[in-house]
Amino acid sequence: MANFAIMGFGTVGGGVAEVLRMNREAIEKRLGEPLCLKYILDVRDLSASPYADKVVGDFSVLENDPDLDVVVESIGGAKVALDFTRRALLAGKHVVTSNKELVATHGRELLAIAREKNVNYLFEASVGGGIPLLRPIFQCLAGNEIEEISGILNGTTNFILTRMFQEGVTFDAALREAQERGYAEQDPTADVEGLDAGRKICILADLAWGREVRPGDIEIQGIRSITPGDVEAAGKDGQVIKLVGRAVRNAGGSVSACVRPHLLSAEHPLAAANGVFNAVMVRGNAVGDVMFYGRGAGDLPTASAVMGDILDALDHRAKRRDLGWSEGADIRPFPHRLKAGTALPVLL
Amino acid sequence: MANFAIMGFGTVGGGVAEVLRMNREAIEKRLGEPLCLKYILDVRDLSASPYADKVVGDFSVLENDPDLDVVVESIGGAKVALDFTRRALLAGKHVVTSNKELVATHGRELLAIAREKNVNYLFEASVGGGIPLLRPIFQCLAGNEIEEISGILNGTTNFILTRMFQEGVTFDAALREAQERGYAEQDPTADVEGLDAGRKICILADLAWGREVRPGDIEIQGIRSITPGDVEAAGKDGQVIKLVGRAVRNAGGSVSACVRPHLLSAEHPLAAANGVFNAVMVRGNAVGDVMFYGRGAGDLPTASAVMGDILDALDHRAKRRDLGWSEGADIRPFPHRLKAGTALPVLL
Repeated sequence: MANFAIMGFGTVGGGVAEVLRMNREAIEKRLGEPLCLKYILDVRDLSASPYADKVVGDFSVLENDPDLDVVVESIGGAKVALDFTRRALLAGKHVVTSNKELVATHGRELLAIAREKNVNYLFEASVGGGIPLLRPIFQCLAGNEIEEISGILNGTTNFILTRMFQEGVTFDAALREAQERGYAEQDPTADVEGLDAGRKICILADLAWGREVRPGDIEIQGIRSITPGDVEAAGKDGQVIKLVGRAVRNAGGSVSACVRPHLLSAEHPLAAANGVFNAVMVRGNAVGDVMFYGRGAGDLPTASAVMGDILDALDHRAKRRDLGWSEGADIRPFPHRLKAGTALPVLL
Repeated sequence: MANFAIMGFGTVGGGVAEVLRMNREAIEKRLGEPLCLKYILDVRDLSASPYADKVVGDFSVLENDPDLDVVVESIGGAKVALDFTRRALLAGKHVVTSNKELVATHGRELLAIAREKNVNYLFEASVGGGIPLLRPIFQCLAGNEIEEISGILNGTTNFILTRMFQEGVTFDAALREAQERGYAEQDPTADVEGLDAGRKICILADLAWGREVRPGDIEIQGIRSITPGDVEAAGKDGQVIKLVGRAVRNAGGSVSACVRPHLLSAEHPLAAANGVFNAVMVRGNAVGDVMFYGRGAGDLPTASAVMGDILDALDHRAKRRDLGWSEGADIRPFPHRLKAGTALPVLL
């Protein structure tokens, strides 16, 4: 029997419990043993929840339980989540997270602790929601030098740009629609200013090249300034505007990364990702271009990735996944290719 | 130091040697030890090859070398390849292959031997060439019940249909062009009759549901009968014709699979896969639809997948990958949804 805990019982945490309820038979068959959700750490009143008997308010219950194998961190942010993740790893627990902010800003430190304690710190859900992405890049493409990664990494902004393109509406009108549909937060800053996509492209760059690239190190520009006129002009040229996170390895080994609205040919494979869908293209020097596409957010898609990581962490109890990155990336400004007459770079 | 051998030094086998030459530094850093190509088993005269000193003609050299860890089987077919794979596994070697025919027809038996000998038999390259596909489905989506898999699994037929659509040419003219470009064999039967795609959808179904589905058990129809008129009529309705391999889990647990030309809306994500590209859509009950896209064939893309498997096999020397499937799938005819007035089913 394997035991896990969920810290933070919001959208993602609740989704993980639901995925286990839906698919317990397949999950346990795969794992080869029962999987028990032992604790839910949350300070909210969950007494009406079917999981009420699992709720604890004190992290030290998790930390001190020698039978607890895996902790899911779905608290978000980089304060409490950082403290609890650090302590869980130090206590010898595997930790699985969907928290892109924490991985992008403290992943290097946390992975070093995981290495020291011989446990897994896994974060497939932090980029692209449920889309298999980090493990395929790190593992299936391990025989490649990764040359470039370009992705539509934020569903909120992709929804907004898609509506602006389809309906000719303004950014503000499309944002309101996204908020009404629950695709955008009441404070949409992290999404529309590109920070969420910036965290994700940094995690991808960290993994691809093994050196830390932090969101503060790179150019990040959101979509607030995109006008219906920009969208219309692009359409007339057979192009679309997408917020693209990019990371490239330059000759000499330096790295450039950015998040910016880009012009793409409507024929570009990434241009087919509309609405809240995400798509990420990876160029390896042997495989060429491969693309991954799917829902980049949502409770069950994200929980799908978390559950895949829980099973992988438990599969690798004896020999941890050798993940990590070091300091010292040589980061250069992104070598944009601007389209004449616009301020928008082109993604070929 | 880890040692491997390549059996069959054709397109794929040669690609594996080339990928190691190109990316040795990254590969060995990832592996944590040197990786040595110790033998090439081939009966052709390779005396002019830079690898001439590694060539052996006798399989028993590989079988009896206690220091040989991994054998790449890129012989093709299901005769010699079957014999050597069986013997390599029985000798305690990990085996990595791109051979879809062998996996589709003898995978169950070979995986059972691998289990008994506690070694890995891995075949990421057998479906979708370099596209990460089997490992993401089996591992990243392990928290899902897989509901359906639909894929453009054969680059040759996709190239032919793309040319028929773009240029209005006949099947025969497009096939000749594919042969001239090296995308189709001189005997194109296995591709154009759908058998190659059939082997691949069977491997996907085997993995998704754990029960053996063999190519002889399912409906397989190729693209020879598609006319320029069919393609034109589809285009007028905003559709394209693609050769799609499909596998679904029906209510009650039975499985249906087929390969047939399908009508797809031009907006369908799979419709964006043109030319020799492959694309596979997987529907999981938690993640929803995810798609994988890239080059489904070619020396370096396929070798990329083989190299990923070599590294994974070596990572899992102590505890093998628990892969396998049993007999006894309940296979039903595919529940097609035909478009009125045509013989072509529709993929929604």
